[in-house]
Amino acid sequence: MASVKVYGPAMSTAVSRVLACLLEKEVQFQLLPISLAKAQHKTPDFLKLQPFGQVPAFQDEGTTLFESRAICRYICDKFTGQGNKSLMGVEGGGPAERAMVDQWVEAEAQSFNPASTALVFQLVFAPGMKLKQDPAVIKENEMKLKKVLNVYERRLGETRFLAGDEFSLADLCHLPNAHYLVSATEKGQLFTSKKNVARWWDEISTRPAWIKVLEMRSTTV
Amino acid sequence: MASVKVYGPAMSTAVSRVLACLLEKEVQFQLLPISLAKAQHKTPDFLKLQPFGQVPAFQDEGTTLFESRAICRYICDKFTGQGNKSLMGVEGGGPAERAMVDQWVEAEAQSFNPASTALVFQLVFAPGMKLKQDPAVIKENEMKLKKVLNVYERRLGETRFLAGDEFSLADLCHLPNAHYLVSATEKGQLFTSKKNVARWWDEISTRPAWIKVLEMRSTTV
Repeated sequence: MASVKVYGPAMSTAVSRVLACLLEKEVQFQLLPISLAKAQHKTPDFLKLQPFGQVPAFQDEGTTLFESRAICRYICDKFTGQGNKSLMGVEGGGPAERAMVDQWVEAEAQSFNPASTALVFQLVFAPGMKLKQDPAVIKENEMKLKKVLNVYERRLGETRFLAGDEFSLADLCHLPNAHYLVSATEKGQLFTSKKNVARWWDEISTRPAWIKVLEMRSTTV
Repeated sequence: MASVKVYGPAMSTAVSRVLACLLEKEVQFQLLPISLAKAQHKTPDFLKLQPFGQVPAFQDEGTTLFESRAICRYICDKFTGQGNKSLMGVEGGGPAERAMVDQWVEAEAQSFNPASTALVFQLVFAPGMKLKQDPAVIKENEMKLKKVLNVYERRLGETRFLAGDEFSLADLCHLPNAHYLVSATEKGQLFTSKKNVARWWDEISTRPAWIKVLEMRSTTV
């Protein structure tokens, strides 16, 4: 059995981020389902793995980790010689190359993620949970996301991907939330109406690793 | 002149984070003031450095970066042989050691920062800007911050610092927001009422690098 274990449902955006990274890096892993509906992420055993009671949790030999972006960086650093070798920057690029990826991972985490997570919750998960949508929250976060994507539009007019001319962890981190918005809401035009963002989205969302994550979502809980 | 340049006001929490890191690493730098009141962070020239119009921006030789946590990781990776050598994990610890720091940097960024930033804005900056405080926002974020600090209290009962027994970037990242809450609001008891968190806060907030940042704040714009 693979030593790498991911705990969580594949439908979770944070879990999907880690799965996409493992598949890009061609790392064997086990996905151990955690039911959020049954509150399995709040059990004492799970809290030993993830003290905030969130998914995913991650294990590799003696290492237990949480936080999807930290897990992804670990996967890149641990399995440096296999699969996609430029997720954290082109090989031999040094600290500046790595930092260029890292700043766009942070832009995703600090700017893209809060607005897109609020929209995904309101437009995708709330209806499924029979919760009422909040039009003010939707409007506010759509405005915020537009501003972020305006920055991306300019950047992607200069470079093929966010951190440069190679697909990297910075692009990968956007896949889960953007996928929900483009495929399951009417807000996809936020992406598809912008020339460079639309080209970028087409390219990153059709990568084999991400297609495989989507297949896992349809076949696992 | 030092080749490292930080653009932004020292009173900004994100700028302070970078300054604390540079001082821990004993890196020479220039701090170039950017007036938020005069909207200098929205000028075309500044937007070339920081496309989101936020502070800080950072330059080192040919490298221009934004996002404080990405800048801090870059400083640790670039100036690996000087100053505090365990900010990104004890030397020779490998990917797992680095990831342990990184997951707690992410916990700060994803859990501590949103709640504490909302409180700092409401309780410190809003009154200074003659903006009305929102009691519902204060209450909601105080609850969120309490939950985060409950996790920290348990963690800090096991280890001296968040990532282990050495001070790291994970602890450092908390300094700016926590300082405002402890020193300039009535919410300091969120920290000081918890045995382990209080001990941790005493230790990290009295480090010479942080004291120096506070001195810079009082002598620069």
